[in-house]
Amino acid sequence: MTIEFTVYKGAKDGIKEEVTRKDDLKRDDVLVRVTHSGVCGTDLHYQTADMALGHEGTGVVEATGPDAHLLKKGDRVGWGYEHDCCGHCRQCLTGWETLCSERKMYGSADLDQGSFATHAVWREAFLFKIPDNLLSEDAAPLMCGGSTVWNALNVAGVRPTSRVGIVGIGGLGHLAIQFAAKMGCEVVVFSGTDSKKEEASKLGATEFHATKGLKELKLERPIDNLLVTTSSQPDWSMYFNVMAPGGVISPLSVDSGELKVPYMPLLVTGLRVQGGIVSSRQVHREMLDFAAHHKIKPVKMTFPMTLEGVKQSLKTLEDGKMRYRGVLVAGK
Amino acid sequence: MTIEFTVYKGAKDGIKEEVTRKDDLKRDDVLVRVTHSGVCGTDLHYQTADMALGHEGTGVVEATGPDAHLLKKGDRVGWGYEHDCCGHCRQCLTGWETLCSERKMYGSADLDQGSFATHAVWREAFLFKIPDNLLSEDAAPLMCGGSTVWNALNVAGVRPTSRVGIVGIGGLGHLAIQFAAKMGCEVVVFSGTDSKKEEASKLGATEFHATKGLKELKLERPIDNLLVTTSSQPDWSMYFNVMAPGGVISPLSVDSGELKVPYMPLLVTGLRVQGGIVSSRQVHREMLDFAAHHKIKPVKMTFPMTLEGVKQSLKTLEDGKMRYRGVLVAGK
Repeated sequence: MTIEFTVYKGAKDGIKEEVTRKDDLKRDDVLVRVTHSGVCGTDLHYQTADMALGHEGTGVVEATGPDAHLLKKGDRVGWGYEHDCCGHCRQCLTGWETLCSERKMYGSADLDQGSFATHAVWREAFLFKIPDNLLSEDAAPLMCGGSTVWNALNVAGVRPTSRVGIVGIGGLGHLAIQFAAKMGCEVVVFSGTDSKKEEASKLGATEFHATKGLKELKLERPIDNLLVTTSSQPDWSMYFNVMAPGGVISPLSVDSGELKVPYMPLLVTGLRVQGGIVSSRQVHREMLDFAAHHKIKPVKMTFPMTLEGVKQSLKTLEDGKMRYRGVLVAGK
Repeated sequence: MTIEFTVYKGAKDGIKEEVTRKDDLKRDDVLVRVTHSGVCGTDLHYQTADMALGHEGTGVVEATGPDAHLLKKGDRVGWGYEHDCCGHCRQCLTGWETLCSERKMYGSADLDQGSFATHAVWREAFLFKIPDNLLSEDAAPLMCGGSTVWNALNVAGVRPTSRVGIVGIGGLGHLAIQFAAKMGCEVVVFSGTDSKKEEASKLGATEFHATKGLKELKLERPIDNLLVTTSSQPDWSMYFNVMAPGGVISPLSVDSGELKVPYMPLLVTGLRVQGGIVSSRQVHREMLDFAAHHKIKPVKMTFPMTLEGVKQSLKTLEDGKMRYRGVLVAGK
């Protein structure tokens, strides 16, 4: 039996609709009917590449391979940036499969399928069951955007008493504000202008600072953990000046340049610049449970899961008009 | 009673000998007769500043103030970069007094005294008892150089199974090699040429790489923890390429420039760049005990604690000829 489904692919001359064919389900393969997909900045980066787009998928299990035994037909599941890992290296054996050197990731592996699609086939081991009280449309943006900011909070060892700074209110930032607020933290938000101030406050921000044109930030108390979620790197020296001793800075922007930060302040203030990507699977599961428990969900703009819908959603994101995460909805 | 002693000070036109006068001992003040002082790169940075030099002191307690109760006349003690802290801020209360915003440090406080001197008066709280089986001449370079590399190993969470890279074999690097080797680690040393290869091996290095002229490092296995102890910053991209996923880089050079490192590799490899200075007091104590237990000691060149000796030691260091830490010896 051959499995056939529709995918939306990047291409030099614009997004294309194509059919992907897969052999019958093997090992722990799971066929998922896609119901929703988040639209992430990374999809923009790949919109002219010859590959299926989308990596914040949620959907329903349609069929399972011979070795799959955790999921069954009808289960709601989601997946994100990582599709597979070697399973036997040091990283895999210590809960860091996101750093496995043989990891399969969006953009470099499995280019014939993504979450901008009607269906996809993924290993059961890399699918996440969606908690009952979390809607699939709300879970989709958690699969990469939520997972990335949650990982940063987790790796940095943020505690309920930490003062967390979030730079940028977009697909990642607006989830980070909610996570940090529900973790009990003071949340200090930095955004270009005041236009998102009220929204930030609703999401859980304690303080709001409009930074456009500023050369210096004046805060009453310094920041312990800074998550930078803007599309490009900020004025690092401005933020270094408001970090607490021993603080952690987590850059999350995708940026092809170098990281250029003040050198001696890093040393004498004992700061830490911590790289990272999405959460590993157990950490990702904890995020989903935390979101479900605290009713954390993205602020969404929805688009139909069609060629036109995909194009519109990417254009909205590219124009900086997404508030705050686009979600493609099948059968809309 | 006035206490008078000789100090060797930096000055625009060369090192000077001067007399410092202090009032009688108050609170937990301790008068120390200096027997030895390490000579550190930071002293070079301050040799034209109007301040007493030296911050790797060891000596013998001569007298104690009314509130001192831990030390007594005759005790062997040492001190390093930090002289005092506020004692009540978050940093001080969590064992991070090195990051206290009111910390008193070499170069910015107590400029009338240092360890290039016959005596000094310090708070008992910031003096370290030297373990019985550690010579004062060997303990001196541990007070800053040893303390700095030990702190980096400690903050980065180096484990006995970690593969530790040490860039540069000087005052700091040659101690870092010994510490890491005795912690059970594989120690991979990077030095400009092969000239220090045999010495590195004696100190405990497992691997040695001469890096001069190299554009790329080829290692059989990657590095978990990298300590950069060179006087200026290295070619970061070369070292980023050999870091293990989730690895920690600790820059320890004193450098007035920016830190410029590869950006996306930091993120996708989950690397951490960790700033830091000397150890806080409990961590410093553990270093002294560890050094005593494992017979770790600096490789020294000694100079007399005289105006001429101070000048010679600084010149030797400036010329890049120190092997590997200069120690000024009183009464030599």
